Amino acid sequence: MKEHSSEYLDSLKAIIERHDEEEARKAIADLHPADIAELYQDLDLEEAEFLYRLLDDETAADVLMELDEDDRHKLLSAMSTEDIARQVVHLDTDDAVDIIQELDEEDRDEILAHIDDVEQAGDIIDLLKYDEDTAGGLMGTEMIVVNENWSMPQCIQEMRRQAENLDDIYYVYVVDNDYRLLGVLPLKKMLTHPSVSKIKHVMETDPVAVKTDTPIDDLTLDFEKYDLVAMPVVDSIGRLVGQITVDDVMDEAREQSERDYQLASGLSGDVESDDTLFTQTKARLPWLLIGILGGIGNSLILGNFEGAFAVNPAMALFIPLIGGTGGNVGIQSSAIIVQGLANGSLDVKSSAKQIFKELGVGLLNASIISLLVFVYNVFALGPTQVTTIAVSLSLFAVVVFASVFGTFVPLTLEKFKIDPALATGPFISITNDIIGMVIYMLISSSLLAAFGTVA
Amino acid sequence: MKEHSSEYLDSLKAIIERHDEEEARKAIADLHPADIAELYQDLDLEEAEFLYRLLDDETAADVLMELDEDDRHKLLSAMSTEDIARQVVHLDTDDAVDIIQELDEEDRDEILAHIDDVEQAGDIIDLLKYDEDTAGGLMGTEMIVVNENWSMPQCIQEMRRQAENLDDIYYVYVVDNDYRLLGVLPLKKMLTHPSVSKIKHVMETDPVAVKTDTPIDDLTLDFEKYDLVAMPVVDSIGRLVGQITVDDVMDEAREQSERDYQLASGLSGDVESDDTLFTQTKARLPWLLIGILGGIGNSLILGNFEGAFAVNPAMALFIPLIGGTGGNVGIQSSAIIVQGLANGSLDVKSSAKQIFKELGVGLLNASIISLLVFVYNVFALGPTQVTTIAVSLSLFAVVVFASVFGTFVPLTLEKFKIDPALATGPFISITNDIIGMVIYMLISSSLLAAFGTVA
Repeated sequence: MKEHSSEYLDSLKAIIERHDEEEARKAIADLHPADIAELYQDLDLEEAEFLYRLLDDETAADVLMELDEDDRHKLLSAMSTEDIARQVVHLDTDDAVDIIQELDEEDRDEILAHIDDVEQAGDIIDLLKYDEDTAGGLMGTEMIVVNENWSMPQCIQEMRRQAENLDDIYYVYVVDNDYRLLGVLPLKKMLTHPSVSKIKHVMETDPVAVKTDTPIDDLTLDFEKYDLVAMPVVDSIGRLVGQITVDDVMDEAREQSERDYQLASGLSGDVESDDTLFTQTKARLPWLLIGILGGIGNSLILGNFEGAFAVNPAMALFIPLIGGTGGNVGIQSSAIIVQGLANGSLDVKSSAKQIFKELGVGLLNASIISLLVFVYNVFALGPTQVTTIAVSLSLFAVVVFASVFGTFVPLTLEKFKIDPALATGPFISITNDIIGMVIYMLISSSLLAAFGTVA
Repeated sequence: MKEHSSEYLDSLKAIIERHDEEEARKAIADLHPADIAELYQDLDLEEAEFLYRLLDDETAADVLMELDEDDRHKLLSAMSTEDIARQVVHLDTDDAVDIIQELDEEDRDEILAHIDDVEQAGDIIDLLKYDEDTAGGLMGTEMIVVNENWSMPQCIQEMRRQAENLDDIYYVYVVDNDYRLLGVLPLKKMLTHPSVSKIKHVMETDPVAVKTDTPIDDLTLDFEKYDLVAMPVVDSIGRLVGQITVDDVMDEAREQSERDYQLASGLSGDVESDDTLFTQTKARLPWLLIGILGGIGNSLILGNFEGAFAVNPAMALFIPLIGGTGGNVGIQSSAIIVQGLANGSLDVKSSAKQIFKELGVGLLNASIISLLVFVYNVFALGPTQVTTIAVSLSLFAVVVFASVFGTFVPLTLEKFKIDPALATGPFISITNDIIGMVIYMLISSSLLAAFGTVA
């Protein structure tokens, strides 16, 4: 990974300060657009805008794509729709759509009106109609398409013509006269069968393809499973309408796993370490407040047993142990389910089997844990103390409950098409904390009522 | 994503049961190796072995690669080293190395001895030397390499020869006479410059390349940043030694994010929803036991203040609130750091800045939270109650501490090259729970000692 040295940054900032356009151009001439985009993290907005104005339209467009959303938004709001249009025409349609989608309705229409190439503008308008979370929302229309009846030389000639508009060639798609996808032509076939009379004789039939409405999560798993670098997208009657490339899929996979991770950590909304103090607080406060509500709920539950604490203050000492263990167990169970659903190894159809198995794991863990704590408390408190017995009984019940609950909730959410990752982290730990306290208090006070404080 | 229907599975199982080899072959003839591998999840070992024996060596090798590690291990232990060797020769060297690496030393040597192609065996032996977590451990040696001084026709002829051994062509690498990497030839240049006299005139110079000892996490970020489908690997003096492809990188990225997620959820070791009850318990019990130790530690700390609970039982009611909030805040802070380090947006060099900023976020959250709880307690308990004041003061201190601590620990681990994800989940929540209790008890008992239980 390339990192900009602080010497380089200092000299660049000095060049920008004295508005030396020529030197600035030289300083960034050899940089990849992704590296130029990275510079923006270390420059203030004015410096960044100065650099950005020096770029040719094509590089500027690439840099725009590589910026993170906040920085891009700042740059775009300072630009005229005409300038934006002049740059996005250099992007692949899927990238152009990503940028145009971030703008408001009015700006969108103006930009589209400024695009001279009607075919390109039309493609962008078509792509804007698809749901962002589906194959249609991720695909681009740039790809090489040949007819099944062409010969290899014809095919290569056509590829040469089409290649002008492409950054990279992944696969060549073969269609029939109605543009229905029939097969894929791996590039090595061009080399190994240079003079075949009809492409259909050497193409690979039955290619892995997705429909425009396939959810992105599913096609990500397909890319991983079949080791693809690109995948064709077809409409409901099998006509080729676009292509999804692996770089977009990798970005999506990263975002998906970051989203799951953030939900599991009690962060709402996409938050980064370099976000402002207020963005961070906004993303963090909601779950903290829900936790506070849970904690206050807990205090109300415990309040009903305040008399018991006065009689037997040792009860209070084990509140963190029981609440914490319930939370930990629940988080483990839900994480296994969320991960299994995300990587495709678990199917919601096998819910019953999974819950039953989790019951086994829960019983095993519960037995070990409550026995160990019992042995400790026999020495720490004494074997006939109500607390000794209440703590181990409660731990047993809490661990079994939290295991099953942590499995049941995400599976149920998935069944109702709600993101199962919502059921991880704070939600599970707060719920289990409260239920743990209820169980502990009920067991303790029943035992106290039955036996009193036996010394 | 293709899923095997239960009708298909039932009929396949029936075919296997009557040992009808011909029908079984037909039933799986059209399946992709990845789909055959997926069948194994629904078959018992004996059924799977029956199917596996019907496959030709090349398909069998591909299926082997697609199986998950446990299933592969079972199949491999039932095979002779000669059979294994006959299959792995059909794999790319990087995949062959992955499989051979899973076997014990003795089997490895036998397999290598059974590989007839000395060059291939030599490549595998070379690759086995690299650390698994580096570029060297991930790369394969299959790639197309041309000399800078060749013409395009010469180059295409060479590609035709080399293509026989390749599944896919990603890039063509250009080297000098000493095999030092000079550039990359995008495939579209073959189309757009069919008759160039020397490749070096059309190649792209200064390609993104990594050294053999580059950590995998770094190169994953490079693939994402530069939108690559493959990347050349060079030795310390710049000679081309291998290629890493995007499918392997995607698998690594998935594993990395699953590892982080598991650590954050208190799972040690790689655990899947379909693992056995004992594997699951083994992965889950360690953190639960550490949690239990933490809980017992907490009970000892609270035990020192047992007298205070007897005098003022209301104190006990807020134990879950304070412990839980500390845990939640700490998990959020550490998750932001771990994620920032994983996606490259955060650099350990800016630690001081990050901790300072986190102090700001912590102070803001702490003010809001302690004020809200104070208002609640004024109504619930009364404004002059010691508990009302102690709870809000403690919450303030705990939130600020947990924010800074949750930022500091993963940054410090990263500095010492220890996986920062270790500092998430249970570790952070248990530590903050304990420290929360200490703070709460110290503040409460000081206030009690100073003012007594004011009604």
